Amino acid sequence: MTGAEPERDRALERMRAEVEAALDRALPRETAWPGTIHRAVRYSLFAGGKRIRPTLVLAAGDAVGGDREETMPLACAVEMIHTYSLIHDDLPAMDDDDLRRGKPTSHKVFGEAIAILAGDALLTLAFRLLADNFAAGSDAHALRSVLIEIADAAGSAGMVGGQVADIESEGKRVGADTVDYIHTHKTAALIRASIRAGAMLAGATPSQLVALGLAGGNLGLAFQIMDDILDVTATSEELGKTAGKDQAQQKATYPAVHGLEVSRTHAKALVGEAHAALQSFGPRAEPLRALGTFIVERKA
Amino acid sequence: MTGAEPERDRALERMRAEVEAALDRALPRETAWPGTIHRAVRYSLFAGGKRIRPTLVLAAGDAVGGDREETMPLACAVEMIHTYSLIHDDLPAMDDDDLRRGKPTSHKVFGEAIAILAGDALLTLAFRLLADNFAAGSDAHALRSVLIEIADAAGSAGMVGGQVADIESEGKRVGADTVDYIHTHKTAALIRASIRAGAMLAGATPSQLVALGLAGGNLGLAFQIMDDILDVTATSEELGKTAGKDQAQQKATYPAVHGLEVSRTHAKALVGEAHAALQSFGPRAEPLRALGTFIVERKA
Repeated sequence: MTGAEPERDRALERMRAEVEAALDRALPRETAWPGTIHRAVRYSLFAGGKRIRPTLVLAAGDAVGGDREETMPLACAVEMIHTYSLIHDDLPAMDDDDLRRGKPTSHKVFGEAIAILAGDALLTLAFRLLADNFAAGSDAHALRSVLIEIADAAGSAGMVGGQVADIESEGKRVGADTVDYIHTHKTAALIRASIRAGAMLAGATPSQLVALGLAGGNLGLAFQIMDDILDVTATSEELGKTAGKDQAQQKATYPAVHGLEVSRTHAKALVGEAHAALQSFGPRAEPLRALGTFIVERKA
Repeated sequence: MTGAEPERDRALERMRAEVEAALDRALPRETAWPGTIHRAVRYSLFAGGKRIRPTLVLAAGDAVGGDREETMPLACAVEMIHTYSLIHDDLPAMDDDDLRRGKPTSHKVFGEAIAILAGDALLTLAFRLLADNFAAGSDAHALRSVLIEIADAAGSAGMVGGQVADIESEGKRVGADTVDYIHTHKTAALIRASIRAGAMLAGATPSQLVALGLAGGNLGLAFQIMDDILDVTATSEELGKTAGKDQAQQKATYPAVHGLEVSRTHAKALVGEAHAALQSFGPRAEPLRALGTFIVERKA
């Protein structure tokens, strides 16, 4: 335990720095016409995100011995998709949030119309970036699989579907099944797809993909349960967004259905299962394990 | 002239029917969970659109001797992208339209949140459909080019960029340059890309692509100029949406800058140039020529 943690944190920090630099290269300049949309896109993408999903892409590639140059465009694409979903989720018609990562949300700064369009632009750019990756000479079959994996996780059968269920459950008494549906679709689907698609690009075998998919689903669900817990236990300052909003909006959350203690225990158990699924990968899965631990131990 | 027109109209009608059937097959059922989003997606996609863009995709494929099975997924994808853009454009934060194709707009029926998400789902599904097309054994290089062509035309350097400029120009005195920027980006870019990408999938040569790109840009601009003209001259009933809105919202339009007569003359000249660019394609480009004529002669 001693000495390993700072080293682990430094490794994650280096991965994040790589992602930041790659995102900067992948995005149009703010001076590209019309400037407003590119300023809005960059504003939200560089608002201090934790870069969990892109780091998971890179870590999944590492786990099967891939090279980061090959997985980096996908890492950037999933962060763009995640960021678009936050911009749209924060809109007045959706969760109506004024703060995100301690800064005013996109629509508070640029107005609703530009915020909607900034999300649209990011989603489009994500797919462009994935396609552009073909140039690197990647195998066409793998790239096709990656596009489908990501589109399914992001679309109406994944993240968008989860958000719909989330909105429709507000203010209602919902059961554990509905909360599970929301969490697995709204959050876990894209996290699982980030891990699976990163591994696909890096040439994972079918059995490695099954193990990583299992780990990814568990990590994704653990991540969302921790999010629900932190919404109850952390301050707005720690979170960089309004704390306690889930309860105020009568959201269908894990703690609301299961209580805080059961939720915490379950999140830890899920990360334990993810680590078990990663056992056969040996030291190459160390970054992925570190991210699992980070997910369950994070304070914001 | 005599006898040719009914035959031409029947040919376009058959293409539209093929597109309708393919779209129906490409979309999730309304019963797929969560039902709301799939009902919303189908509501807007089957609201009686003219299917100009998908028909252009098929016609461009025809022009270079491609087969329609190969171009149909792209045809459906561009119609999904077009429909997502209409749903988002109609939102209260954007153009605030209550009617589209004679029916209440998505947000009037499903609420703003679901309308935003229905657009997001359609954009995502469009890229999934394009990727899925790989299965047909198409050439990877062509598909990569198609994805980039469509993403560039739809994103912040294309349609989204045009919409931003459109919003930012409302209520201002803008010059002919700005109106040209808006029209070429908001509308012509996706029309041009539909034609070019359809031809790419069908194995067009580089010089064929140049000619079709030229024709596509001209047809796209002619289409938007006619749209501006019809907003002034047609009734709401004919249009299926509120007529005269451009003037009421002080939009930057072609007739506002150039007057109705110059606009009409210019639209016809553009279609004439498109037809000239198509000359070398012979009878195989007949559907594309018919669409050009339709664009400039349409009454709604």
